[in-house]
Amino acid sequence: MAELILRGCRLPDGGRGDILIEQGRIAAIGTGLEAPPGTPAEDAAGLLALPAFVEGHTHLDKTLWGMGWWRNEVGPRLIDRIETERAMRGRLGLDPLRQAERLAREFLLRGTTRIRSHADVDTEIGTRHADALVALRERLRGTMDIQVVAFPQSGVLVRPGTKELLEAALRNGADIVGALDPSGIDRDPKGHLDLVFGLCEAHGKPLDIHLHEPGELGAFALDLIIERTRALGMRGKVVVSHGFCLGEVARADALYEAMAEAGIGIATTAPASRPVPSVKKARAAGVPIFAGNDGIRDTWTPYNMPDMLQRAMLVGLKNDFRRDDEVALAFAMVTGWAAEACGFEACALTTGERADIVLVQAETLAEAVVAQPPRRLVVSHGRIVARDGVLLS
Amino acid sequence: MAELILRGCRLPDGGRGDILIEQGRIAAIGTGLEAPPGTPAEDAAGLLALPAFVEGHTHLDKTLWGMGWWRNEVGPRLIDRIETERAMRGRLGLDPLRQAERLAREFLLRGTTRIRSHADVDTEIGTRHADALVALRERLRGTMDIQVVAFPQSGVLVRPGTKELLEAALRNGADIVGALDPSGIDRDPKGHLDLVFGLCEAHGKPLDIHLHEPGELGAFALDLIIERTRALGMRGKVVVSHGFCLGEVARADALYEAMAEAGIGIATTAPASRPVPSVKKARAAGVPIFAGNDGIRDTWTPYNMPDMLQRAMLVGLKNDFRRDDEVALAFAMVTGWAAEACGFEACALTTGERADIVLVQAETLAEAVVAQPPRRLVVSHGRIVARDGVLLS
Repeated sequence: MAELILRGCRLPDGGRGDILIEQGRIAAIGTGLEAPPGTPAEDAAGLLALPAFVEGHTHLDKTLWGMGWWRNEVGPRLIDRIETERAMRGRLGLDPLRQAERLAREFLLRGTTRIRSHADVDTEIGTRHADALVALRERLRGTMDIQVVAFPQSGVLVRPGTKELLEAALRNGADIVGALDPSGIDRDPKGHLDLVFGLCEAHGKPLDIHLHEPGELGAFALDLIIERTRALGMRGKVVVSHGFCLGEVARADALYEAMAEAGIGIATTAPASRPVPSVKKARAAGVPIFAGNDGIRDTWTPYNMPDMLQRAMLVGLKNDFRRDDEVALAFAMVTGWAAEACGFEACALTTGERADIVLVQAETLAEAVVAQPPRRLVVSHGRIVARDGVLLS
Repeated sequence: MAELILRGCRLPDGGRGDILIEQGRIAAIGTGLEAPPGTPAEDAAGLLALPAFVEGHTHLDKTLWGMGWWRNEVGPRLIDRIETERAMRGRLGLDPLRQAERLAREFLLRGTTRIRSHADVDTEIGTRHADALVALRERLRGTMDIQVVAFPQSGVLVRPGTKELLEAALRNGADIVGALDPSGIDRDPKGHLDLVFGLCEAHGKPLDIHLHEPGELGAFALDLIIERTRALGMRGKVVVSHGFCLGEVARADALYEAMAEAGIGIATTAPASRPVPSVKKARAAGVPIFAGNDGIRDTWTPYNMPDMLQRAMLVGLKNDFRRDDEVALAFAMVTGWAAEACGFEACALTTGERADIVLVQAETLAEAVVAQPPRRLVVSHGRIVARDGVLLS
């Protein structure tokens, strides 16, 4: 069943209207719509209709969600977090498929239907995590769209065998080549980037690189990424995740321009604790930018929720978006802009688009972002998948 | 009735126990406690018991909560916000007592029993907002503790008559002298600070000054505040709210030391969008520091919730507190540290303290901070005041 009519919705533009869904897509939006006989109807009773949400950067495979509270006593360095995680995942008996599915369903319950998730690939777990996410992607097909990034969290060059494992993960169905901090982890920016761009070229896959490196070190990595993206003609196929250096270096404006020219996007979590790319500067330069949670309740961090409205709020707070038209930018970061930059099917309340819709008690889109009201109804592909905090399958 | 026993609580230290309340205070915490015959009992069923929360800096008098969504189209400068607010409050028919009570009750519903609120005093509204908060303080006495700061939001020297209004507000019962940005608004740091410290001296009241001024301008104001606090012997009676300059200037460590020596505290909202005082640096220097929301859903900002667990999360994110022992610091910012620095009755789950207690579904204090679960039961002065999101009076 993918026919449905939502009657009496409050629409993001302030109006009221019905939303008619046929064959899983939005067939019409308007007042007093006629539905074909037998079309199931839902009385939205003035609830606000929003397009469903997009998670642009998370790690479904390593969440501890639902496994009992894990006491975090980890040291402050990046390498402390990477090594703690490798040590703990075995000790905790973390099952990546079970955990990824558990978290994906929590996302769905809160109105997210598209997720780009990184999956660790390393010489200890091999392709197990990436394969689990590929299996989950297939299991949820038709309900959620999941993109799997084969992510060498522990480095590539420093751990011989990792390159081959990344290739295996791609052959097994991973969608995107992952990479990270080419100086900080592999100690060889040219070598790391040549290798991961080489994988993209050989396998015809996009790239999504974690770039935490600060200041000019990060900016240098970005220079190298821009050069390679241009040389390989990978416009629209490269995402830099985090890109903290863009919040730090004096030449950030020139970097945004070069990224726009090369067609590179930015994924940001908008963390409160450090400088980050500016949403307005990126957009003004023509750089696609979108949001994600990063890890949720894992050995890296106890924070974050499978709720993209909370992430939109955090993006808004970080960017000091107070006006309603600014809060709408934060909302775009977890909906339309994210779908476009990740290459998901479009995410919009527009006739012809896929009917992935969320109903909440809110007067305006801005209120939905700042208050994150409970999801009263979640529709995916035209089907009701969750109601009042309960998944229907 | 202020007798009660909460049976089978999960305690913040990880243990289980009963909490016996007599005459509104915690009489005992332990397993298998005997209660006097007839004592009402609640089965906590393993819910986590937390001390009730403290809001250390808000503006109850100007929230638009419950008045319908207000579309924010305000310019970006501080003065834009101040002037928009003055213009809008009349046009919107903002009733400060109604609004303050509405928001205070939302705070109570979410487990906050102590609030320090600023109330605007200016030549247009006179003492009306401050008087409203004084009336609310009396109305809620025995359920919530409210401190009222007479706050000259629009300046003192630049608006002749304001000094006299502040004095009237204090005579009418306001608890604390407010002040703000002595260079930015009154254009006369010495004049503004001499005046407000003079009010403190004449009326025997503490001071709470909004200091948004950046960098060395803010640090200079802080120098002058420290000098006056010392000269008047106002140890423990002066709070600097915001103090953004402490996150910016190279000499911040010396400023923390001088503040500790003078006995000045810091209230922070830990905003994501700008540098702020460091919780760890302040505490290491011996400076009391605590948290508040600032305005909630008003003409300044659409953000913030009457939920101090959310504020604790934002403090934790801003300070990059990931370990459980660090998240506990963020929780102290909205409980014990805030009560002590504001001069409220102590706020702790300890025998002898006032029985202001919140029960939530969480395994640990850190989980309560990161997930902000619904408040299942709120106890104030030993009485159950809210259950499952509903106030009982």
